[in-house]
Amino acid sequence: MVRGRISGLSVRDVRFPTSLGGHGSDAMVSHTDPDYSAAYVVLETDAGDGLKGYGITFTLGKGTEVVVCAVNALAHHVLHKDLKDIVGDFRAFYRQLTSDGQLRWIGPEKGVVHLATAAVLNAVWDLWAKQEGKPLWKLLVDMDPRTLLSCIDFRYITDVLTEEEAFEILQKGQVGKKEREEQMLVQGYPAYTTSCAWLGYSDDTLKQLCTEALKDGWTRFKVKVGADLQDDIRRCRLIRNTIGPEKTLMMDANQRWDVPEAVEWMSKLAEFKPLWIEEPTSPDDILGHAAISKCHNRVIFKQLLQAKALQFLQIDSCRLGSVNENLSVLLMAKKFEIPVCPHAGGVGLCELVQHLIIFDFISVSASLTNRMCEYVDHLHEHFKYPVVIEKASYMPPKDAGYSTEMKEDSVKKHQYPDGEVWKKLLAARGN
Amino acid sequence: MVRGRISGLSVRDVRFPTSLGGHGSDAMVSHTDPDYSAAYVVLETDAGDGLKGYGITFTLGKGTEVVVCAVNALAHHVLHKDLKDIVGDFRAFYRQLTSDGQLRWIGPEKGVVHLATAAVLNAVWDLWAKQEGKPLWKLLVDMDPRTLLSCIDFRYITDVLTEEEAFEILQKGQVGKKEREEQMLVQGYPAYTTSCAWLGYSDDTLKQLCTEALKDGWTRFKVKVGADLQDDIRRCRLIRNTIGPEKTLMMDANQRWDVPEAVEWMSKLAEFKPLWIEEPTSPDDILGHAAISKCHNRVIFKQLLQAKALQFLQIDSCRLGSVNENLSVLLMAKKFEIPVCPHAGGVGLCELVQHLIIFDFISVSASLTNRMCEYVDHLHEHFKYPVVIEKASYMPPKDAGYSTEMKEDSVKKHQYPDGEVWKKLLAARGN
Repeated sequence: MVRGRISGLSVRDVRFPTSLGGHGSDAMVSHTDPDYSAAYVVLETDAGDGLKGYGITFTLGKGTEVVVCAVNALAHHVLHKDLKDIVGDFRAFYRQLTSDGQLRWIGPEKGVVHLATAAVLNAVWDLWAKQEGKPLWKLLVDMDPRTLLSCIDFRYITDVLTEEEAFEILQKGQVGKKEREEQMLVQGYPAYTTSCAWLGYSDDTLKQLCTEALKDGWTRFKVKVGADLQDDIRRCRLIRNTIGPEKTLMMDANQRWDVPEAVEWMSKLAEFKPLWIEEPTSPDDILGHAAISKCHNRVIFKQLLQAKALQFLQIDSCRLGSVNENLSVLLMAKKFEIPVCPHAGGVGLCELVQHLIIFDFISVSASLTNRMCEYVDHLHEHFKYPVVIEKASYMPPKDAGYSTEMKEDSVKKHQYPDGEVWKKLLAARGN
Repeated sequence: MVRGRISGLSVRDVRFPTSLGGHGSDAMVSHTDPDYSAAYVVLETDAGDGLKGYGITFTLGKGTEVVVCAVNALAHHVLHKDLKDIVGDFRAFYRQLTSDGQLRWIGPEKGVVHLATAAVLNAVWDLWAKQEGKPLWKLLVDMDPRTLLSCIDFRYITDVLTEEEAFEILQKGQVGKKEREEQMLVQGYPAYTTSCAWLGYSDDTLKQLCTEALKDGWTRFKVKVGADLQDDIRRCRLIRNTIGPEKTLMMDANQRWDVPEAVEWMSKLAEFKPLWIEEPTSPDDILGHAAISKCHNRVIFKQLLQAKALQFLQIDSCRLGSVNENLSVLLMAKKFEIPVCPHAGGVGLCELVQHLIIFDFISVSASLTNRMCEYVDHLHEHFKYPVVIEKASYMPPKDAGYSTEMKEDSVKKHQYPDGEVWKKLLAARGN
């Protein structure tokens, strides 16, 4: 089915001036001014069918140009390749990208080069799904287990998950698959909202947003904490009082604390009954983790599972090495029976990750217990196939592809620094 | 003593075409073609004393341009700052660089941005040492403990090392300091050689190089392994036979294996009595580690020490966040009584890291037991103050600074892609 050679790769630096509002603010001092951004990759082929592959990785403004530079450094691995050779031995292609002899040194499989890898591979997956005429989640659900496993690089994780074990998990997942797909199409995948309780919001705004969210059917809320303890106590009390004792509350410290500090701080916030505390400390601190963490690759996730340091696991569609690496993490989580609650928000993270978690429910975990996917209500208007939320649930995308495509007009306006939006802003700032 | 504002920062992409020989080859398939390279930073001040600060970070060719891009993204933190404000509250400056709100996302403290941070901070330390008229190791040895600690960011490590514990370690290190400095100046710091046994060398070359090294007084050798087991057995036997049973042999697998594979492979190589096996698996795999590993930041080192997963610890002058972060790792290693055996080689790594390990002996560890610093005999000719090896030991540098300065002529010739050397090579390759 797949066809064509990759005849073009372009990458653009797209930034939204979100620092002008209080959206997206969290406890890292200097995180108070993120401009939600993306390195945006477009792949073209010579197939003559007009289909393109779109890939993004999420960034926070400055540094997007560094990721763009890394995408360009990876481009030669993709250009002039047949798409069928790429997806036909996707494991080999994944390893080629992540083990490029010279580039590997400046990673490996982490930071800038891994974000760039995600952007490129997300575009490949989008193109593949489009050529098959299916939304990505459906492409994965329909794929036979052996083909699906051939997309995964098991290097460094065979001590906890071999390919044969993964095959058994997928085989077991065949039972009841049809019913679960039906269930998803009708009910969608449960979401929680992070849009009500950013650090930058006033108490009035917090209360108003929580009240509105309740009316819209939301039952699960996340609050950002970690900048000031007294402030956190006041805000958490206000939110708990507003949403009531039965609703679910999560907290996210965005790496703000040292380990002893995290323990002390959280003991003070325990009365507000958080389901989890997210990223209490450095994302590299496997032994220091308590509950849930965003991680940069499958090797870190493997250890968090081995060390029983996680009660929940957050995948990320743009920090991990695309669908390929997320598949390996979903399978490991299933083996350890740890619920996966994806990280989303940013630019396009909701659009992408919904495919992965819907696939997970249908084909891998077969469970919704303690599971939910983050939702943040912004920047969806820039996407051609934005998420559809109904009754606080993600409704499965119906359009072919990975929902990665942005509106060309939005991209043009927000290109940094030459798009219309930035030209005006930079002129006003006197730059 | 320190003076001037930072009035200029330049960064260049300098590559040596080492892939043309078999030097530097190891077991990662695609590592067979490294072009040893560096992002090379020069800081200028308005002090009018003609002193500049030089900083490097080591890379493998492709991707150097990505690190250069990241250095430029960090430049605004350095430019127009007074040097005395930078080093006067070096902890705050370190944190500013590593916690830049927008850039933090594409790290944090790892990969491209951390390499860029190292290059910038290495230049600051070089400038500081030059203004003080001392080699860097001597600047550190003479610095009072409180000032030295004020250079360290303890965030994320206070659960194993507090500032007060670090102070006690440095206080204890005062005893016998003078004698140890004398000892260093006379005998130097013990080195081991990696120059004899790269994977790309023929058996004849291996034998010849080991024989010559023995004549030159070398007693410790490292061999690269991991590509092919039968090949490794033959090569290790040849080297062990050549150097004899009493000499020290280390092995380095450069992340080649999964955990079960590492265990099996090493059981086959055990008869050649390696002192350690280096990087058996992913550098992110804390729980999978057995003996020694290069790590990307203090948080990873902390856990390896906590998990007792290390018998030796390798610092790196360019992968960690410069002197600042290396100091924290040296102090943690002392607390856990784990010998530090620095990683070196590459471009300038020997020049830089000798300062750190000589300081460690004089002021922190006070021991040479099971300690030695890697040495690779190439590319030193491009440095203005190259290492001096006598009787297989690093002799303490006498020139002011961090030995980071390269010969301008070498830099010009090897700039990528416009230097004379590359123009010729690229033309010959038909690019």
